[in-house]
Amino acid sequence: MSSPVVELTQALIARPSVTPLDEGCQTLMGQRLAAIGFELEPMVFEDTTNLWARRGTEGPVFCFAGHTDVVPTGDLARWHTPPFEPTIIDGYLHGRGAADMKGSLAAMVVATERFVAEHPDHQGSIAFLITSDEEGPFINGTTRVIDTLEARNEKITWALVGEPSSTHKLGDVVKNGRRGSLTGNLTVKGIQGHVAYPHLADNPVHRAAPALAELAAMHWDNGNEFFPPTSFQIANIHGGTGASNVIPGELKVMFNFRYSTEVTAEELISRVQSILDAHGLDYDLHWTFNGLPFLTGDGPLLEATREAIFEVTGSHTDPQTTGGTSDGRFIAPTGAQVIELGPVNATIHKINECVKVADLELLVGCYQRILEKLLCP
Amino acid sequence: MSSPVVELTQALIARPSVTPLDEGCQTLMGQRLAAIGFELEPMVFEDTTNLWARRGTEGPVFCFAGHTDVVPTGDLARWHTPPFEPTIIDGYLHGRGAADMKGSLAAMVVATERFVAEHPDHQGSIAFLITSDEEGPFINGTTRVIDTLEARNEKITWALVGEPSSTHKLGDVVKNGRRGSLTGNLTVKGIQGHVAYPHLADNPVHRAAPALAELAAMHWDNGNEFFPPTSFQIANIHGGTGASNVIPGELKVMFNFRYSTEVTAEELISRVQSILDAHGLDYDLHWTFNGLPFLTGDGPLLEATREAIFEVTGSHTDPQTTGGTSDGRFIAPTGAQVIELGPVNATIHKINECVKVADLELLVGCYQRILEKLLCP
Repeated sequence: MSSPVVELTQALIARPSVTPLDEGCQTLMGQRLAAIGFELEPMVFEDTTNLWARRGTEGPVFCFAGHTDVVPTGDLARWHTPPFEPTIIDGYLHGRGAADMKGSLAAMVVATERFVAEHPDHQGSIAFLITSDEEGPFINGTTRVIDTLEARNEKITWALVGEPSSTHKLGDVVKNGRRGSLTGNLTVKGIQGHVAYPHLADNPVHRAAPALAELAAMHWDNGNEFFPPTSFQIANIHGGTGASNVIPGELKVMFNFRYSTEVTAEELISRVQSILDAHGLDYDLHWTFNGLPFLTGDGPLLEATREAIFEVTGSHTDPQTTGGTSDGRFIAPTGAQVIELGPVNATIHKINECVKVADLELLVGCYQRILEKLLCP
Repeated sequence: MSSPVVELTQALIARPSVTPLDEGCQTLMGQRLAAIGFELEPMVFEDTTNLWARRGTEGPVFCFAGHTDVVPTGDLARWHTPPFEPTIIDGYLHGRGAADMKGSLAAMVVATERFVAEHPDHQGSIAFLITSDEEGPFINGTTRVIDTLEARNEKITWALVGEPSSTHKLGDVVKNGRRGSLTGNLTVKGIQGHVAYPHLADNPVHRAAPALAELAAMHWDNGNEFFPPTSFQIANIHGGTGASNVIPGELKVMFNFRYSTEVTAEELISRVQSILDAHGLDYDLHWTFNGLPFLTGDGPLLEATREAIFEVTGSHTDPQTTGGTSDGRFIAPTGAQVIELGPVNATIHKINECVKVADLELLVGCYQRILEKLLCP
C-alpha cells in the first residue's frame, strides 16, 4: 500500500502529458482541491490547458506553481521501464515527469490536503497556478494566467514553484531567483564573391571574427551575493555556401546572455552594439527577451522555506540563482516573492527519469511546514 | 556564308556537352586533325572523354590544351536564345560554351589547318590535349592524360590553354601562371553544454574566434612581380544545434588559400598550425591540395604570345596570374611552359554566354602566328 503522495504521483505519470498536452492531470488535481474548498478556474489558451485554483478570498496569497506537461520520452528502447507506466525499483519511482514535476504536483496537493484538514480556518488564501506549457514555447501558459490575474488586480504574495531544485539530497538547494535571459540574432553583412577575387568581395567572417573574439572575452560584471557573473555564449554561427571557392555574403550568429541583477538588458544591448560598431561592422541585430532576472531576498518566504527544510530534513539549504529559466520569471514581475523547491534534478529531461520515493514524503512535509509558517503565524 | 572558325564553333556549341559529356565534339575535332596528319589517341577514363592528338614525332612539342565540356545552362527561361542553338545577334555568337571554350577549340583547329597548309614541314610537333572534365571534378581529365604521357616520358614543351583570358578586348590579358590553391577543413573541438551552465561546457566558437581573427588579419607575403599577395579566405563556418540555449560541441571552418610562388603549401600549413596551437585549440585539420602555383616567365612561349597578339590586334598584352584555377596547373608541373589565351570572359558561366564573332578570327590569327614563331624559326 503506497502513501497518498506516491499514489497521486503515479496517477499523474500514467497520463502521457507531453507538452502541450495535459491529459486530465489538472482535472485530477482539481477534483482533489475542490473537495477541500478550492474554487477552480480552468483557463484554456489555444493548445494549452491551465488551472487557477484558490481557497480563500483574503490576502496574503500563497501560490503553488507548476506544470503538468513533460518533455518527450526520447528513445523508448533505452528506458528500463515504460515511461508512462510508473514503476518503483529499489526505492525510486521511475517514469517521465517523476522529478519534473509530477512528484512536486502530488506533494503540493497532499500537503495542502493535510494543512487544510488541520487548519481549515488558515489566514489568507492558498492558490494553485498550473500550466501544461512550461516545457514548450511558454506562450499560452503561466504568462497568460498571470496576465489574466493582473488584469483583475489579483495578486500573489508568495509563489512556491515545484521545479526540481535539489542537487544531491532533497532541499539541499532552493532557487531564490533566476538570471535574466536575452538572445541576440546577429547578421553580419558582407559581399559574396569568388575566393580567387577577394578584392571584389567583403568577407563577413573575417570582419566579424575580432568582434566575436572581443565579445567572448568580455567581462560583463562581477555578479553579486546572489548571482554569478553575467555569461555570454555564442550558441550558433553559420556562414558559407558549402563550396570552398565562394566567399560568403553574410554571417549569422545567435548568442545568449544569462545575466545578473548587476546589469540590465538595455546595458547589455548597448555594450554589444558598441563593440560591433567599433569594429565597423554592417549588421542587423534582433533581440529576444526570454526573461528578466529576479531575486527573492531575505523575507518571509525564504525564511519559511529555510526553516521548513531544516525541520523536515535536518539540513541547511543553499539558495541559488544559477541554472535555466522557469515559470517563476513570469510570476516575479508582479511583485510576488518566488522560491523554487522540488526534488533532486539529476535525471530530469533524461532517459529513465526517476524520483526517490522517500523524497516525495519529505517534500510533502516541507510544503506543509511552509504553509503553516506563512498562513498560521 | 560564315568563316570556317565560326562554323566550327557553331557545330561544337550545337553539341550539348555538359560536364562530363563530350557529345562527339572531340570526334569532330579529331576528324579535322586526322585530315592534316595528326595521330589520334582517344583516352577514356571512367565518365570522361579525352583526346591526345599529335602531328610529328620530334621535339619541341607545342600543345593546344582545352576542354569540350561546358557548365550547365542555368534557367533556360532567362536565355534569349536556346543555349545549344548557336545564334548570331549584333555581331556576337550566343550559346553555352561560346567563350568557354568552344570558340577557342575551333580557333585552334582552324589555325592549325592554316599553319600546316602553309608549313607542312614545320619543326617539332603540334599536339592537342582535349578533355571533357575541366568544369567538373577534374579527376579523369587532363591530369590522367598527363599521367599517361609522363609514364612514357612524352613531354610537352609549350602549352597554350584556350581559357578565356581576355577582359575587355581580345588578347588584352593572358595568364602566364596561376596561384596555388589549398583548402583547409578545420574542426575546433569543445564541450557541448547548456548555456545556463557555461562552467560545465567549453565553447569552441569562443576559443576559435581570436585565432580566426588572427588568421584573417595575417599578412602572408607580398606576392612578387607576377603574383598578387597570398590570400586567405574563410569560405564556410558552422557551429551550433540551432537552439539558443545549447553551447555547441564543435565548430567547423573551411578556408582556402590562393597563394603565390613566394610561399609553399608546407609553409602555409605550418603557419596556420602555429596560430591554432598558440591559441591552445583542440582541433582536427585536414588539407586538400587543389593545385600548385606555376609561372611561365620570360621565354619563347610568352615572347611569341606577346608578339603575336601585338601583330594581330595592335595592342600590348598584360600577363597576369590572378583568377581561378585551370587545367594549366596539371601541365605545368611536368616542366612545360604554359600560357592561357582565349576570348573575353565577361559572360562565361552565365546566362546568355557569347563571344564576339570578330574575335574568333583574331584568335585564329594569334594562334597561327604563335605556331609560326615557335615552329618556323
